[in-house]
Amino acid sequence: MRIYFDNAATTAIDREVIDEMLPFMESHFGNPSAIHYYGRETRAAIERARKTVAKYLNCTPGEIFFTSGGTEANNMAIRCAVKAYHLKHIITSPIEHHCVLHTTQALEKEGIVQLHFVKVDEKGRFDLNHLNELLQKISERCLVTLMHANNEIGTKMDINTVGEICKKHNAVFHSDSVQTVAHFPFDLKNIPVHFISGAAHKFHGPKGTGFLYINHAIKISPMIFGGAQERNMRAGTENVYGIIGLAKALEIGYENLETTKQHIKGIKNYMIDSLQKNFPDVIFNGDLENSLYTVLNVSFPMNNKSQMVLFNLDMAGICASSGSACSSGSNENSHVLTAIKADTNRVAVRFSFSKYNTKEEVDVVVAKLNELVRVPEVVSN
Amino acid sequence: MRIYFDNAATTAIDREVIDEMLPFMESHFGNPSAIHYYGRETRAAIERARKTVAKYLNCTPGEIFFTSGGTEANNMAIRCAVKAYHLKHIITSPIEHHCVLHTTQALEKEGIVQLHFVKVDEKGRFDLNHLNELLQKISERCLVTLMHANNEIGTKMDINTVGEICKKHNAVFHSDSVQTVAHFPFDLKNIPVHFISGAAHKFHGPKGTGFLYINHAIKISPMIFGGAQERNMRAGTENVYGIIGLAKALEIGYENLETTKQHIKGIKNYMIDSLQKNFPDVIFNGDLENSLYTVLNVSFPMNNKSQMVLFNLDMAGICASSGSACSSGSNENSHVLTAIKADTNRVAVRFSFSKYNTKEEVDVVVAKLNELVRVPEVVSN
Repeated sequence: MRIYFDNAATTAIDREVIDEMLPFMESHFGNPSAIHYYGRETRAAIERARKTVAKYLNCTPGEIFFTSGGTEANNMAIRCAVKAYHLKHIITSPIEHHCVLHTTQALEKEGIVQLHFVKVDEKGRFDLNHLNELLQKISERCLVTLMHANNEIGTKMDINTVGEICKKHNAVFHSDSVQTVAHFPFDLKNIPVHFISGAAHKFHGPKGTGFLYINHAIKISPMIFGGAQERNMRAGTENVYGIIGLAKALEIGYENLETTKQHIKGIKNYMIDSLQKNFPDVIFNGDLENSLYTVLNVSFPMNNKSQMVLFNLDMAGICASSGSACSSGSNENSHVLTAIKADTNRVAVRFSFSKYNTKEEVDVVVAKLNELVRVPEVVSN
Repeated sequence: MRIYFDNAATTAIDREVIDEMLPFMESHFGNPSAIHYYGRETRAAIERARKTVAKYLNCTPGEIFFTSGGTEANNMAIRCAVKAYHLKHIITSPIEHHCVLHTTQALEKEGIVQLHFVKVDEKGRFDLNHLNELLQKISERCLVTLMHANNEIGTKMDINTVGEICKKHNAVFHSDSVQTVAHFPFDLKNIPVHFISGAAHKFHGPKGTGFLYINHAIKISPMIFGGAQERNMRAGTENVYGIIGLAKALEIGYENLETTKQHIKGIKNYMIDSLQKNFPDVIFNGDLENSLYTVLNVSFPMNNKSQMVLFNLDMAGICASSGSACSSGSNENSHVLTAIKADTNRVAVRFSFSKYNTKEEVDVVVAKLNELVRVPEVVSN
């Protein structure tokens, strides 16, 4: 039996979500752009899905655009906002997901924008005074893109406060919210944000589907051109089952938000306690006071054993991660841990939880860590 | 019982394809970028899928890049080739799919390229002398983007001949092959083409998944930035089930190519004969000699009844289309029929077939058309 503590990388699809998707794989297969029965059937299902998403995020269906995932949504928001508003400055942070960092860096490399980085502290918190200063200094309209919560260390920003700062300076404000959608409530009618993004597979929905919320005040052109899908904003035959799965997963997420949150919070706190009892020298990366209840980034002192901890956890059937899955294939150090100046003489492991995890699993993992991380003390007679 | 003659818009997923996808929805849910067991499991499945695609198209796995569909693949090829090679001229045709037309037009509007259109004749055949002339006239390196087969009228070009012309002029050659992949053989090691594209849902695979073939001689940067997926060429957590479904559908397509082709050709020819017998004034748009065996574009004289034919076919449970599904929601006339100067005093209906169709269905449709299209002759005593 494997223990899956890598839910920030991806989650298992909820059985109810699969059951909602299956009829659209098996029989309701029409192209939503077709005007006949089969087309109208899938078109109607997509529009129902859009309404569901809008309902739970408190925005209008016309502000929700389905994409192939969170990465596309973030690329689209950044690239299209820069183009539509002829923006020459982007303010972002060094701890963004690569889909934001690499997109903004590409725009800089293309000579289109100049990048500015908000300072982050040792817990991954944005320096909002610095954000204010940057916005004051740059006389032209800016794009601000700051993530709602960090996928590696869990630190969560106050999106309302950042939105108000952006509003004061007339900045366009995008927030990568891939880790928070369906995990935290969003009241988009009252949050001053222009773009947020979601990826279904981060909340027990299918991979290959996401959405971009575009506030009605924003007018952009598409990134992907072609047919009239998504009200001319994202061409390409819709991933019908994906969209339906996304909406169902989001619905389940929000309908059970409090109980799920309490359950997962309980697991995270239990693991924190248990680790502190077992490893007096353990520290936790990120801001434990204000963070994703799904993510716990644990830092152990470096030694011969701890260096191999992820590998050995995997051998023991325990799935965890060193950071973002999207970069875990590569050999680079985590850019997030580098940015928060984490001790390079320690080893970080990200454990991330879902509603399917239990405290019993934590017991197994902590017991295993006792074997895998601890260097036997030299006993002197 | 409905009759589905709109397979050029989308096809039903093959049951075998669903069965191949399901384990990855139900239990093998890891993020392919994760280094633990669940991640390696899905990563391996994606690489197997890539090998399958490469095997049937006779290219190397390293030349196959999975995307969210044909539209994204075509956008990526065009936009990234223009950027990578600093191309200032695109030669295309007026009968391309909107995902090619609108992308090239956007690049022109952005002031990046100048567009040139190859002449097409009344059957939708490209004037290759004109293509040669255009390439000769434009002294700089060009991107040529011409579709392998037209989705509305079925006319199929000789991709080898066009490729040779492009090669002679050192042009970058992209061909939208969304309607031909898994319906016709591709020997990519021997076809002088730099990019072709495929969409799984056009060959009984799932929606939301496609691929771009990029010839090894071509080096481009990504269109969507982020993680290191698809060898740094297309960021975003992979649509694992979609990719697995695509490969399975493509395998089934190619393993049964000849029998499926003969079956569908039989249906198409049977419908041609039957229509000619019943409607002496029927004509067929496109090049019947050299076209998709899946597509039959039928043109009836305009009258009060024929104007409503699609609507009334739908009422009778028969699904057909007026042209591309991607534009059928809009009120515009077909740009393809306009470009081939089709008689505007006629009504066109696209019937498109799959392996699931039968000649009996053709009988039902033709009988219904007799009711729906024919204006009763005035009988004189």
